[in-house]
Amino acid sequence: MLIYMFSYSSDAIERAWQILEKIPGRATGAYSHSQGVKGLRDEIAAGIAARDGFHASGDNIFLTDGASPAVHMMMQLLIRSEKDGILCPLPQYPLYSASIALHGGSFVPYFLDEETGWGLEVDELKKQVDEARSKGITVRALVVINPGNPTGQVLAEENQKKIVEFCKNEGLVLLADEVYQENIYVEDKQFHSFKKIARSMGYTDDDLPLVSFQSVSKGYYGECGKRGGYMEVTGFNADVREQIYKVASVNLCSNISGQILSSLIMNPPKVGDESYESFMVERDGIISSLARRAKALEEAFNSLEGITCNKAEGAMYLFPRLHLPQKAIGAAQAAGAAPDAYYALRLLQATGIVVVPGSGFGQAPGTYHFRCTILPQEDKIPAIISRFKEFHEKFMDEFRDVSRDEAPTGATIESGGD
Amino acid sequence: MLIYMFSYSSDAIERAWQILEKIPGRATGAYSHSQGVKGLRDEIAAGIAARDGFHASGDNIFLTDGASPAVHMMMQLLIRSEKDGILCPLPQYPLYSASIALHGGSFVPYFLDEETGWGLEVDELKKQVDEARSKGITVRALVVINPGNPTGQVLAEENQKKIVEFCKNEGLVLLADEVYQENIYVEDKQFHSFKKIARSMGYTDDDLPLVSFQSVSKGYYGECGKRGGYMEVTGFNADVREQIYKVASVNLCSNISGQILSSLIMNPPKVGDESYESFMVERDGIISSLARRAKALEEAFNSLEGITCNKAEGAMYLFPRLHLPQKAIGAAQAAGAAPDAYYALRLLQATGIVVVPGSGFGQAPGTYHFRCTILPQEDKIPAIISRFKEFHEKFMDEFRDVSRDEAPTGATIESGGD
Repeated sequence: MLIYMFSYSSDAIERAWQILEKIPGRATGAYSHSQGVKGLRDEIAAGIAARDGFHASGDNIFLTDGASPAVHMMMQLLIRSEKDGILCPLPQYPLYSASIALHGGSFVPYFLDEETGWGLEVDELKKQVDEARSKGITVRALVVINPGNPTGQVLAEENQKKIVEFCKNEGLVLLADEVYQENIYVEDKQFHSFKKIARSMGYTDDDLPLVSFQSVSKGYYGECGKRGGYMEVTGFNADVREQIYKVASVNLCSNISGQILSSLIMNPPKVGDESYESFMVERDGIISSLARRAKALEEAFNSLEGITCNKAEGAMYLFPRLHLPQKAIGAAQAAGAAPDAYYALRLLQATGIVVVPGSGFGQAPGTYHFRCTILPQEDKIPAIISRFKEFHEKFMDEFRDVSRDEAPTGATIESGGD
Repeated sequence: MLIYMFSYSSDAIERAWQILEKIPGRATGAYSHSQGVKGLRDEIAAGIAARDGFHASGDNIFLTDGASPAVHMMMQLLIRSEKDGILCPLPQYPLYSASIALHGGSFVPYFLDEETGWGLEVDELKKQVDEARSKGITVRALVVINPGNPTGQVLAEENQKKIVEFCKNEGLVLLADEVYQENIYVEDKQFHSFKKIARSMGYTDDDLPLVSFQSVSKGYYGECGKRGGYMEVTGFNADVREQIYKVASVNLCSNISGQILSSLIMNPPKVGDESYESFMVERDGIISSLARRAKALEEAFNSLEGITCNKAEGAMYLFPRLHLPQKAIGAAQAAGAAPDAYYALRLLQATGIVVVPGSGFGQAPGTYHFRCTILPQEDKIPAIISRFKEFHEKFMDEFRDVSRDEAPTGATIESGGD
């Protein structure tokens, strides 16, 4: 028998007691209500109300094992057949394409505009909806990821208003992936939930069906192994709400530890709490370090021949564009790989650095990208950058296009390129 | 700042260190491999091998948030359209009917035989498969719940062999719901996994596709709020295995605490461990208390007019049959409820006791049942039984059929019955 000693701040202990009081049986080992423990949902609703300045209700919260099951649940409910379409950004986090495919619906892409910092243009949405409708697709919902994954942009408030208006006019459910709401790295941008935007425009629960997804896997906490998350569901009538609850109840409930964590991230320590100062120091330390890492990587990418990279305003990613030489594209084709996948594999083999090819997220035809997280430890970033630069320069030297005048015919044919 | 002291047995501490060593980063906050932490899967495989006496591999284990997501995953993979059918017992735990409906397949029922203690007859399986095939349904898999939910029976070894043979002959995937494997309450029955049965018959990984589901929510542990579970997947070729992994990876991974618990239930303390004795006392205490509760409830039900109840050999339930008077059936019809739902509602209103109507699980036409758990605390069982008896006797007095000769015509009409 061994005895261990632990010390806790007084607010942590008080909070633990408060949480236990909220859970029937005061233990985490039993199933909860299929939407999650009511007291924890109420706490999340209070956190949302404090964030947005608009009312939120625990009855509208569905706690889930991370955000992914919540997304699946909504896809399950929205998609009746391949004639039902869901508007999703390209590039997009592939959970959406996978979920739509698994539920037998149609993926209706809209392109984010790289030129304007991965802007989301309502004209583009309208064009894609009309095109889908002309093919007999019933477009049922719009997915917006804000801050963006893999693109890292943060939507401007004005842009969000136009998107809300668009959904209202077109009769679409707005599925707002807001899991990166704490991850903002630029002074001139701020996170606004779509619910806050809609309410500030005067739209009530009766006007607009809106689902917001949140997760304990991102932010400054990043507890992704705990599988906690929730969706806030507003603007559906009672019949539909009942069906959402029915689907939620098939899997009984999400894990209770994840439920507790979800309530904690929406109600962090407050002024006056013993742990408040150390919490704020740690939180700000993490966010500002992520911001520095994003900046350092962005500058490094932009300093290189053949790479352009938009600012990471938020989320955890950069999505630089690779302007690959024709010769490299030819080599990729000869290897049977997408050009950016070929580049990523070569990078991995040469340096051990893992990036995800843009072709995995979807991208404008003829463009190539990769997604790079900003998560490596800050003190390792300079070494990563220098290894990356060395690889990239060699890669460009190997494949740099020579002008047609200079190119020896044999070499051109061999490369399968220009 | 407050200091708390905790004491742990030396094997618990050692195990905690071993577990941390198995997890990359030695923390539970990061995503794991989409099948679950490799070291934990290996430990589960070792536990399965020790249980069955046949080889098991961590590569075949998929850790999930409870058993339900694993069932959904297999249904997702097996069902292509409404022309694909899944054989399921009736009565059945409604996860199966719900999952088949959600994935757009056909539920192909086979009836368990109440007369022979909820026996699973291969003749019945054959009859239902043939009938489904004659309607153009491709029957793809057989679900067996052993020990049974809601029926509480434990299959005999000989019976299991016939079921394995049947699946082999008919080319069916055997989906073995074995979540109640630790819950056996009779001396003459024992749990045998279907994999052990198949291997003991000489069938190898090449002969029979077989999936076994296990959960931390049942057994003597019952940690259902932790959402831990796994499936062991054997007998599929590499292409199919890749698709299973692909579907598993859509949701990234299951919660790490649940993964750890899953590894613990398959590897409880061993002889020589400091906690072994107290563990065994607690485990045996829980199982033998559940056995006594099952026996007490079974005897109470069988002592009552109009109720017959099979033995609870395993699982956590009794599924007594209600032989309801015609007058009660008429009253239920008048109230717009299934007769057993009407009975359950009246019971709830009169006593606060909750049972689940048999109509929620499916049952032979014209029969009525309810499912009753054996989970109330043992010292509360006598009071529950006495409240139940009092209600039931009054209910029978209220509705007891009188012979046609004695019945005043008015009353017969009023009741809407016989």
